[in-house]
Amino acid sequence: MTPKSGNTKSHDSWTGDPAQLLRVGAGFRLAEVDPGATPGYAGGRKGAELDLAAGAARLGELQERLFAQSRSDATADSVLLVLQAMDTAGKGGIVRHVIGAVDPQGVALTAFKKPTPEELAHDFLWRVERRLPASGFIGVFDRSHYEDVLIGRVRALAPPEEIERRYGAIADFERRVADAGTRIVKVMLHISADEQKARLMERLDRPDKHWKYNPGDVDERELWPQYMAAYQTVFERTSTLDAPWHVVPADAKWYARLAVQALLLQALEAIDPQWPAATFDVAAERARLAAT
Amino acid sequence: MTPKSGNTKSHDSWTGDPAQLLRVGAGFRLAEVDPGATPGYAGGRKGAELDLAAGAARLGELQERLFAQSRSDATADSVLLVLQAMDTAGKGGIVRHVIGAVDPQGVALTAFKKPTPEELAHDFLWRVERRLPASGFIGVFDRSHYEDVLIGRVRALAPPEEIERRYGAIADFERRVADAGTRIVKVMLHISADEQKARLMERLDRPDKHWKYNPGDVDERELWPQYMAAYQTVFERTSTLDAPWHVVPADAKWYARLAVQALLLQALEAIDPQWPAATFDVAAERARLAAT
Repeated sequence: MTPKSGNTKSHDSWTGDPAQLLRVGAGFRLAEVDPGATPGYAGGRKGAELDLAAGAARLGELQERLFAQSRSDATADSVLLVLQAMDTAGKGGIVRHVIGAVDPQGVALTAFKKPTPEELAHDFLWRVERRLPASGFIGVFDRSHYEDVLIGRVRALAPPEEIERRYGAIADFERRVADAGTRIVKVMLHISADEQKARLMERLDRPDKHWKYNPGDVDERELWPQYMAAYQTVFERTSTLDAPWHVVPADAKWYARLAVQALLLQALEAIDPQWPAATFDVAAERARLAAT
Repeated sequence: MTPKSGNTKSHDSWTGDPAQLLRVGAGFRLAEVDPGATPGYAGGRKGAELDLAAGAARLGELQERLFAQSRSDATADSVLLVLQAMDTAGKGGIVRHVIGAVDPQGVALTAFKKPTPEELAHDFLWRVERRLPASGFIGVFDRSHYEDVLIGRVRALAPPEEIERRYGAIADFERRVADAGTRIVKVMLHISADEQKARLMERLDRPDKHWKYNPGDVDERELWPQYMAAYQTVFERTSTLDAPWHVVPADAKWYARLAVQALLLQALEAIDPQWPAATFDVAAERARLAAT
């Protein structure tokens, strides 16, 4: 399950490997990441549009192979994209524009909300386990078990020793999931506080966006430094070889979409799924069919 | 819940109302439908490509409104597309090309397979109930409870009196679902036996399609007349005002996709979802946000 290094061949305007450039490694400091940057990409907004379309075609083909492979091998690999971010950072746009280009039949999307009473009566990973992608699927988590160490920590929704326990539990859980054949791609979309302010203001300015606005968003915004500290801790405790974190600058939506697509493409290229061989006698079936 | 009649305004090459033309009404005979026809559409394959793209944009906007409406009203409407067909008729293509154009966050897709032992230990509608779309969602059933009166009948998977019971149970079930706010769009994609043969042969000819071929498909094909009779009975017993059936000629894939899109558009236009009013004081929130 060691990720192969590789470059996304279909993307001509990348000047560096996004997986390497965006990966959270030793000594990583979130505070040093510029949310307005576009690391490793030289094509600009126009180039990104073309590269996103080319990447979508490639992603579609790889997804179909991944799915096909799983039809005759129930232990075949799967992919899990975990999306975390502050409000308005663009998780929805990733789902719509990157995941939306893939055949819906091969995608398993879960938007995790505030836990229900039933979910709270179980360990925090219980509801997550149930939503893991089956063999051959691309799973997408819009929010995830990381909420339990982000808002969970900032809002003290559990005792400190319970929050502390969770980091190790997550690392163990993700190691098992990876060992069982799921390639995990963890992404934090990183926007600046100023950009969030502008995006929230736009939601207030447009009646067709009012439904996306929640007064609670401003309450959370006032805890920005605490959230950034909680993310820093998440990165230090849970960016593992099995499931590394990537911090994707997201003030430029076009960059964030292209970068997440590139990370997904690399995960699929590392799996390198193949069309499965026929499990029947092709000539015999052709004769049977011809006779009908 | 009575469907409004209406025409799909965005589709210029329709010469008739697809919902009316394709709906199963009194005296309907499946045997009289030409699977190669393209009723009500004069644009041909080229026109269909343009109309499908225009329709996708309109579908996307209506879906977002439907979803938005449900955020502040948990009793808001939903849509359920039920897809039934013989193998290779193009259900997967509908999901990919019609549903695939909609934001995945607003779609709930279920592909019903052979029932599991747990599902068989319950009434046949048990697993269906669990997959009904929540308020604001477009649910899609790739196969459905109708399998239980199609293959169920043809293969005698249940006693005749149990099969008989199910038609009434389905009508009652769908009436309740419709009354509770789900607009049900039932579609049979209708291909000819010759077209199926050609499509199955193509799967045998192409190694990248072998995974889609199942020797059992030929066994089912040999029961073609029995399946057509079972469909005819389904239409007579379950095409109701609450949930009418539509038979969509599907030898021309481009027509089938455009027609199903048009039926979905009409369902959404009949709901006519509106952006919900703000549930907060917009000016006060603007001031709060500005102060951060």
